[in-house]
Amino acid sequence: MEVGNRYVSLKKYINGAPCESDLEIKTAALSLEPRKGSGDIIDAPGVGEVVASDIADYNKGDWVADHIGWQEYSVIHGGETMRKIETKEFPLSHHAGILGLSGFTAYVGFHHVCKPKKGDRVFVSAAAGSVGSLVGQYAKLAGCYTVGCVGSKKKVDMLKDKIGFDDAFNYRDEPDLKAALKRHFPDGIDIYFDNVGGEMLEAAVANMNCFGRIGICGAISDYTNSIRTGTFDTVDTIDKRITIQGFLVVDYVHIYKEFLKATVDYLHRGEIHAVEDISQGLESVPAAFVGLFHGDNTGRKLVQVIHH
Amino acid sequence: MEVGNRYVSLKKYINGAPCESDLEIKTAALSLEPRKGSGDIIDAPGVGEVVASDIADYNKGDWVADHIGWQEYSVIHGGETMRKIETKEFPLSHHAGILGLSGFTAYVGFHHVCKPKKGDRVFVSAAAGSVGSLVGQYAKLAGCYTVGCVGSKKKVDMLKDKIGFDDAFNYRDEPDLKAALKRHFPDGIDIYFDNVGGEMLEAAVANMNCFGRIGICGAISDYTNSIRTGTFDTVDTIDKRITIQGFLVVDYVHIYKEFLKATVDYLHRGEIHAVEDISQGLESVPAAFVGLFHGDNTGRKLVQVIHH
Repeated sequence: MEVGNRYVSLKKYINGAPCESDLEIKTAALSLEPRKGSGDIIDAPGVGEVVASDIADYNKGDWVADHIGWQEYSVIHGGETMRKIETKEFPLSHHAGILGLSGFTAYVGFHHVCKPKKGDRVFVSAAAGSVGSLVGQYAKLAGCYTVGCVGSKKKVDMLKDKIGFDDAFNYRDEPDLKAALKRHFPDGIDIYFDNVGGEMLEAAVANMNCFGRIGICGAISDYTNSIRTGTFDTVDTIDKRITIQGFLVVDYVHIYKEFLKATVDYLHRGEIHAVEDISQGLESVPAAFVGLFHGDNTGRKLVQVIHH
Repeated sequence: MEVGNRYVSLKKYINGAPCESDLEIKTAALSLEPRKGSGDIIDAPGVGEVVASDIADYNKGDWVADHIGWQEYSVIHGGETMRKIETKEFPLSHHAGILGLSGFTAYVGFHHVCKPKKGDRVFVSAAAGSVGSLVGQYAKLAGCYTVGCVGSKKKVDMLKDKIGFDDAFNYRDEPDLKAALKRHFPDGIDIYFDNVGGEMLEAAVANMNCFGRIGICGAISDYTNSIRTGTFDTVDTIDKRITIQGFLVVDYVHIYKEFLKATVDYLHRGEIHAVEDISQGLESVPAAFVGLFHGDNTGRKLVQVIHH
């Protein structure tokens, strides 16, 4: 059987924010060689349905989550690990978002890095993003006062009207981020969940309360220089005994079941919303990817490659 | 009884690094009013001997440690807390240094904030200072590889030859701090005990290992702009899961007895050295204070105000 497989390929090394012209769509016969030898296919996480399998435990129609690459078909070999999705009660897309890496990152970072207490005042940057939109909802469910920062009026409205943030603001309307945070947190910030770095982090440190905790999850500003570099105020950090911690979810696999149970329960009770932004077709991958660096997406950005 | 009391007073508000001319010596009749009403005397910690007392438990000849101010005589009232020094087996000066706030800060910051493991690679800035010189010694006693950064060749020699650092370097000889740390820590830094902030912190973050811990103790660069401001690299902080924590010893009073016992034991066994830099006479306070901001002191800077 020979199947034509379309995939996304990198034309040249990307320095800074990517452009759509850095990427191109190619077609090749689907190779049954191990993934590592698949040439120029870009590795990326995703979810899919098994169309053919000779591995025990994986049958046609099963749903799986894995690093499947930006392509229509992915060949996974027996020795490799692949997460099988046990239930089909939620849309497949949820397993690439709220029940996948985004949700797990939000849960671990908020609950296990930032360690919230009821009544804490929580600030989330990139709050309409895949992770930020969930951090804010976990924060509300934990009894925290929650304010998000985003890049458009539409996202401000979404946070406040759709997913229950107490307040939100558009950083593009704020010439002075420190003053903006002072206005939104007259009693100071207890937890800052940082998805952007740069001057937003600097402004948050200036507004933190004593024993404040900052979880460093993303650094979009450092990848793209989209906002000003931040200065690190060590005097504030000492005087207010601030803890700042970078984290990666790979260190928290022991929390995975706890996360999944809590989040599925919230979904069952309708207490948490998966915000998803789905483009159609493999050819939309370049625009979808580039858009992430400009804040085009609202919630988890996904591309549906195959209809079935 | 009227006693003339000499004290140090501030002539004007200090912005940035202080000058000797910002301070002056005055004389006034010793007032028995509570300290808060003592006017322009500068509050500062110190140790002293009781010369007269009508408070039970404090007798003539007793040693005490307290915020006694930059003055020859200090009036302490009964309702105020004052730490009585239980033993006279060590010089009085030790209780204002290795057995006082400096030692406690070093102990808490190293053991309870930075949480060392045997074999960790430890970097200490301002390593010839009152706190840094002790952090390095605690690190060596904990089985860590320890490198200090200082501001003179004399201090480099002191660290290596007198108090047992594995290595040390003079930051004034290093145009590129990141490269200097890379050279001294080819296998990376596990713990950075930061006494300076600024670009040194930035350089340390760039050289940290995964799960590295940074204790933020001092920020001399932020007080004085003596070294360049540091940029905070959030990408490194995430990828290497770095934890950065500011701390103040007031939050660790429950550790005080543990600290005192450990340090007294080290002193008894000759395993730790109190590095003290003692000036003579109240009139040396302005120069001693100003010198702190220029790295003039080696070890704990003290002024002996009274001879007896």
